[in-house]
Amino acid sequence: MSYNLLKGKKGIIFGALDPNSIAWKTAERVHEEGGEFVLTNAPIAMRMGQINDLAKKTGSQIIPADATSEEDLQNLVEKSMEILGGKIDFVLHSIGMSVNVRKGRAYTDQKYDWTQKGTDVSAMSFHKVMQTLYKSDAMNEWGSIVALSYMAAQRVFPDYNDMADNKAHLESIARSFGYFFGRDKNVRVNTISQSPTPTTAGKGVKGFDGFIAYAEKMSPLGNATALDCANYCIAMFSDLTRYVTMQNLFHDGGFSNTGVTQPVIERFGDE
Amino acid sequence: MSYNLLKGKKGIIFGALDPNSIAWKTAERVHEEGGEFVLTNAPIAMRMGQINDLAKKTGSQIIPADATSEEDLQNLVEKSMEILGGKIDFVLHSIGMSVNVRKGRAYTDQKYDWTQKGTDVSAMSFHKVMQTLYKSDAMNEWGSIVALSYMAAQRVFPDYNDMADNKAHLESIARSFGYFFGRDKNVRVNTISQSPTPTTAGKGVKGFDGFIAYAEKMSPLGNATALDCANYCIAMFSDLTRYVTMQNLFHDGGFSNTGVTQPVIERFGDE
Amino acid sequence: MSYNLLKGKKGIIFGALDPNSIAWKTAERVHEEGGEFVLTNAPIAMRMGQINDLAKKTGSQIIPADATSEEDLQNLVEKSMEILGGKIDFVLHSIGMSVNVRKGRAYTDQKYDWTQKGTDVSAMSFHKVMQTLYKSDAMNEWGSIVALSYMAAQRVFPDYNDMADNKAHLESIARSFGYFFGRDKNVRVNTISQSPTPTTAGKGVKGFDGFIAYAEKMSPLGNATALDCANYCIAMFSDLTRYVTMQNLFHDGGFSNTGVTQPVIERFGDE
Amino acid sequence: MSYNLLKGKKGIIFGALDPNSIAWKTAERVHEEGGEFVLTNAPIAMRMGQINDLAKKTGSQIIPADATSEEDLQNLVEKSMEILGGKIDFVLHSIGMSVNVRKGRAYTDQKYDWTQKGTDVSAMSFHKVMQTLYKSDAMNEWGSIVALSYMAAQRVFPDYNDMADNKAHLESIARSFGYFFGRDKNVRVNTISQSPTPTTAGKGVKGFDGFIAYAEKMSPLGNATALDCANYCIAMFSDLTRYVTMQNLFHDGGFSNTGVTQPVIERFGDE
Repeated sequence: MSYNLLKGKKGIIFGALDPNSIAWKTAERVHEEGGEFVLTNAPIAMRMGQINDLAKKTGSQIIPADATSEEDLQNLVEKSMEILGGKIDFVLHSIGMSVNVRKGRAYTDQKYDWTQKGTDVSAMSFHKVMQTLYKSDAMNEWGSIVALSYMAAQRVFPDYNDMADNKAHLESIARSFGYFFGRDKNVRVNTISQSPTPTTAGKGVKGFDGFIAYAEKMSPLGNATALDCANYCIAMFSDLTRYVTMQNLFHDGGFSNTGVTQPVIERFGDE
Repeated sequence: MSYNLLKGKKGIIFGALDPNSIAWKTAERVHEEGGEFVLTNAPIAMRMGQINDLAKKTGSQIIPADATSEEDLQNLVEKSMEILGGKIDFVLHSIGMSVNVRKGRAYTDQKYDWTQKGTDVSAMSFHKVMQTLYKSDAMNEWGSIVALSYMAAQRVFPDYNDMADNKAHLESIARSFGYFFGRDKNVRVNTISQSPTPTTAGKGVKGFDGFIAYAEKMSPLGNATALDCANYCIAMFSDLTRYVTMQNLFHDGGFSNTGVTQPVIERFGDE
Repeated sequence: MSYNLLKGKKGIIFGALDPNSIAWKTAERVHEEGGEFVLTNAPIAMRMGQINDLAKKTGSQIIPADATSEEDLQNLVEKSMEILGGKIDFVLHSIGMSVNVRKGRAYTDQKYDWTQKGTDVSAMSFHKVMQTLYKSDAMNEWGSIVALSYMAAQRVFPDYNDMADNKAHLESIARSFGYFFGRDKNVRVNTISQSPTPTTAGKGVKGFDGFIAYAEKMSPLGNATALDCANYCIAMFSDLTRYVTMQNLFHDGGFSNTGVTQPVIERFGDE
Repeated sequence: MSYNLLKGKKGIIFGALDPNSIAWKTAERVHEEGGEFVLTNAPIAMRMGQINDLAKKTGSQIIPADATSEEDLQNLVEKSMEILGGKIDFVLHSIGMSVNVRKGRAYTDQKYDWTQKGTDVSAMSFHKVMQTLYKSDAMNEWGSIVALSYMAAQRVFPDYNDMADNKAHLESIARSFGYFFGRDKNVRVNTISQSPTPTTAGKGVKGFDGFIAYAEKMSPLGNATALDCANYCIAMFSDLTRYVTMQNLFHDGGFSNTGVTQPVIERFGDE
């Protein structure tokens, strides 16, 4: 589908690693909707990724940036405005990583320099992106900034480990910066809390397959896919949602407000 | 603006009273986006309203229906499918009324047959609309049902009176029915919690002017207008938001997550 | 245990049906803590119940009252003050009933006069109780009013049917009336959202056994019992919690903020 | 008042700086209720504070500890168990600090090493405290851990700056660790979200006086004092609240669920 919803809009998309990524799908959909953008990723992630294919397909340029580095972000924002020929209308932040998860360290046995690294990458990077945009006055009025989150920010999913706390931190940054960005620049800031999604990153989490099956059975509409999420990002970048700000928006087929379902409870019926 | 977002989609819009109504603006925007619909309102409201102008402008037909009457709703749903030539893709429920508010009766001095009337009109009508659609199998797959709500469902706004409890009830019905409609028909159900809006109905609430000025100063983006809300409804009716269900979506310029603002606190600085 | 936490405090306890009832346990614990109270129940429930034993054991009197009847409630409040020799310090509202549930009618096939009856008994009765107390100026300063609720007010538990919407309505009434009772009389109003509890009423819900097993496995501390809930009510009636008001308080061993647990996910691991 | 609610219980209290501190009042109240405890504070805070008076008055010992240091915390936990003669029943974490706030740096112009320091002190310290207790198996069954929070975790109070994000992080840690502490040790973990309180720390925040006046007028019961909060902590440490866990508990006179009040709206009535 294509509606020209983002015609004339310019943006920056963080985190398109491979075709499973939500950011990748979003880039494709933004392109179909007439938007232009710069792609960016951590230098290290780019070496592993296939982002050049995406850039070619969408006529985009790539600017590597470590999202924890203020200099890299400053360079990214300046170069993006040059390339796109003006200020930014939309930003997608799809960045998250926990060293404790990667190294199999339990939540009750954190190595704190790893924890701190995870917070820096997964949450503070969002503040840094916004502070760079804000101080550079790089956002157009009524622009839209979205970060991807997960419901572990509200409820405990044991294997999600310290990423839960980082997502809670991230969502708070969206509210806090959303206040100032709204007041001063008429820019909105939101997080989308997406169903568990079999991205390359997601698949790395222990017990992911069992969990995704559980979430599917706990969601009246089933789990939302990466493409569905990309479509929701389009809606949030468009001019149809200008007054939605400082919100965490569940995009999960109803999981978040479902207490239990018949297929789940049946597995407990014999006790 | 027009993106053809709703091309080929058919719906029912409740509650377009006059050009100040959110439902009126929504009807206009749906028409611009290529959707077709039937307009409906309570027979008594239609005598006061200008709905014929809207019908003419949007090429729509009007079917009067008391939303508390199962027969009227059954007739509405059947006739709508005949007129539109198929099942329904979107529904807007914009109905609310408190006799206690109208008659100036305090929340602590309710006349309970009035309270019950308000619940029936403002909350149970939404259940009746959905039950009629569900039992008639009148919704297309991936259809979208939206009801308008207000943040009094979460926090107390004293003059909002028993409408607060009705809105809480309404939002619960959206979740409850959203579960079954999602599971059985892939239909989503949500409420939009809109900024205070100077509709003809809204203006009737005591202290409305002072309140709307306060909300404006408490919202980083200012209050959302009826037209902004119509645009958000378009997004929610479109195929871009298929996996959002059972949610209450704040559309309020950030009011709901703002604890205080400088312009508000300044009025308390001298104490 | 006994701490004399409620010494000199007077109250009214609704809904003690039999020794499984939370209200029954609360009455016993209040008595142990030095509080005095009147017991009340619907005349019809009393015929089925063993409330006389409880009255004898706790030195209490019983005043039958239909909690949907303003006259009955007026009589209850007046007589209670006479019997107890003064104004009221605490109230427990433990009342709920759905005719649709009892008669096995699905949520998507409600009989609306039954639905309305359920709302009247389960939610509006709480407003009526408080309005009677408020208008009679029957509450002492810093008194505490508690109603029992359930998490279905926030999330869908399909078999809970229209009781979900009634609990959402009830919790809203707690907030709304809590505002006025706080402002005018320094009285606090809260709801306690309790684990599923094998009371005589709870057991009547379809699929209750499977559900209670699921909740047990989803709660880090396990399900809270009726006695635990009674203890929490004691805390809420005591002078230790004077500034907690207009809240819905989860008392559920952690269920409400647990997204999934290992024992639950294991049952989905083979898919 | 004294009820012997904490007789035989042993604990650790962080953050008693001076008699305005919530932790100070809590220590006094715990002592009155028969509990024993060790007092602790950062070495630097102790030089400024009057904690020796409190220790004398309550018969407690003081163990200095930097709550960001795993070694200090390990020493604290071990020594506390020696001094108290057994495992720990209750912990109060009342620690928070933002360098950006202290140095007047705006939220949109953070110095990130200061931000990171604030997160470490205000949020990660709570994880470190719990991880130390957990790994040392230092908590008794049915013990209770409480951290003090503030509603800026949910809504924006502009002058609260990056402390908002730290409190959101803190509350998430309470949920996350609460899951494991509940599951493995039957220990509960909660945060109390307290009214703005004129502590020595609180008074340092810009615009605090205007804000506290506003909060007073927005709370049906008025702002809760430090002593009220101490009483609530007593309730949360007692055996009356064993099944409350992973919750953020508002203790604020109703502020959190009040959308507006008459005294506030009146100041906007002339527009």
